[in-house]
Amino acid sequence: MSHDHLPDFDQIRAAAARIAPHAVVTPVLRSDALDTQAGAALHFKCENFQRGGAFKFRGACNAVWSLTDEQARGGVVTHSSGNHGTALALAAATRGIPAHVVVPEGAVQAKLALIERAGAVLHRCAPNQAARETTAAEVQRRTGAQLVHPYADDRVMAGQGTIALELLAQVPALDALITPVGGGGLASGVAIAAHALRPGLTLYGAEPVGADDAARSLAAGERVESVLPDTVCDGLRALVGRANLAALRDHTVEVVTVSDEETIAAMRLLWRELRIVVEVSSATVLAAVLKARDRFAGRQLGLVLTGGNVDLDALPW
Amino acid sequence: MSHDHLPDFDQIRAAAARIAPHAVVTPVLRSDALDTQAGAALHFKCENFQRGGAFKFRGACNAVWSLTDEQARGGVVTHSSGNHGTALALAAATRGIPAHVVVPEGAVQAKLALIERAGAVLHRCAPNQAARETTAAEVQRRTGAQLVHPYADDRVMAGQGTIALELLAQVPALDALITPVGGGGLASGVAIAAHALRPGLTLYGAEPVGADDAARSLAAGERVESVLPDTVCDGLRALVGRANLAALRDHTVEVVTVSDEETIAAMRLLWRELRIVVEVSSATVLAAVLKARDRFAGRQLGLVLTGGNVDLDALPW
Repeated sequence: MSHDHLPDFDQIRAAAARIAPHAVVTPVLRSDALDTQAGAALHFKCENFQRGGAFKFRGACNAVWSLTDEQARGGVVTHSSGNHGTALALAAATRGIPAHVVVPEGAVQAKLALIERAGAVLHRCAPNQAARETTAAEVQRRTGAQLVHPYADDRVMAGQGTIALELLAQVPALDALITPVGGGGLASGVAIAAHALRPGLTLYGAEPVGADDAARSLAAGERVESVLPDTVCDGLRALVGRANLAALRDHTVEVVTVSDEETIAAMRLLWRELRIVVEVSSATVLAAVLKARDRFAGRQLGLVLTGGNVDLDALPW
Repeated sequence: MSHDHLPDFDQIRAAAARIAPHAVVTPVLRSDALDTQAGAALHFKCENFQRGGAFKFRGACNAVWSLTDEQARGGVVTHSSGNHGTALALAAATRGIPAHVVVPEGAVQAKLALIERAGAVLHRCAPNQAARETTAAEVQRRTGAQLVHPYADDRVMAGQGTIALELLAQVPALDALITPVGGGGLASGVAIAAHALRPGLTLYGAEPVGADDAARSLAAGERVESVLPDTVCDGLRALVGRANLAALRDHTVEVVTVSDEETIAAMRLLWRELRIVVEVSSATVLAAVLKARDRFAGRQLGLVLTGGNVDLDALPW
């Protein structure tokens, strides 16, 4: 069964109920100083405090608990050397099933250690997309594991969309929302949920200049696949998925692009004013708000901070 | 009018109402991994997300808003090169009155910059207790500012006690609470509030081995003043105040002492499992719980994390 299509709002509501016993209701933090600087009321949704340190747990957990008992028996598999791998391993553990994660040779050792610590079996492959997919397919055949793609999966998108449900319950006054855009699982899930609840809400995405395929694709009216990512935002290097891009277009998500310098400055500012250390990818949202100040002025704006898996001994400044 | 006496519960309730428009309701974070390691349910009260990055804002804010308009006119003064100085400046700003902070020559420049950025006028003095007090008294005489002591002040203790009100509302099931012990303003305020609401609650303090005057004083039955602090926990070097010590004794607060190594390990663990960077002083509470494991096993335990004003470029590991 293919899962490369968009979830509807019912699926997102079902996901919220499904993950509730396992996921953290993450806090919303505020800062007078940042509000003043932005000229807007900023509500930071801290998914860096989610299980596994990133929002990815929501989607992975929903996928794992969407399986029938028979499907679940063989476990789950994905290819990701980042937060989705860790999230899937943690989610599988909540159901007591195996998790297999295909990782490319040369991936950062610290990230692999996180995934292993979360309980996954690692499978190494050559560092290219074809090898990843072949290896994942092989693991599927051999173990009966179900594939859970990091973003091109309706169960994953539905899980990520629960952030919008939760945030709108925490801050009913919101009139705009911004998320980082990588593969687009988060942005599309959030768009579907947010507009189902508040059709008038304005949606924004933040993307690094060096991985601006979503911005270009929306401008061109078709998926631009020629972007070679060049950014410190390792969580945002993926090309936006097909279904995900369709959701961004249908929900008129406006993408603001930011330079790595602006993003790193925003990451420092988040530490200085909110006392949180977030992944550089997460800081794109604040960078976008400070860059395109006029667009956000006077808003009650929700900013999704996606993760906090940072090496404190190797900060990017 | 002297303020070197204990507040009662009514004062703490009044403080909660007084600071509500200005203070942050800080989140409570949890970690399955830490619960497993401790053998207890740990509820971390994150005052590192309080305004100014530390719980001190509560006491300072209550003191500032306890002044009559006539008293407030001359502003406030304190001697502190740490979080209380910043907190008092921020609190004074909420009322639009001046704040004077007496700081010893040789204090850490980064901390002084924080206090100044919060809007205080700095007054330098020689680095000893007598000079601090003389200088503060001089500022009082010259400006009409009201003295707000960092911990030996009933208004300050009442403000710190609001943490217990807030935490018990957030986690009604708590049966034990632990705070770091420095001057004792936090521990005494929390003890008074917690026992007024839950007489059966067990109270603990955490103190560095190298600044264990409260533990020694409680053991000796009298205030031990001979301790020369030797610890990385810069927030816990003060001798416990007289009134504060009386409160610890009356509320049978049990003090657990921890080495700096244990505390630094706990600080790292808080980053690894909760994705928060707290001041080393704050980590004493987790160090104590992991050290005296038997005492806390099976408890629903509240741990007050006092602050997050850390230099990320100079972590203690």
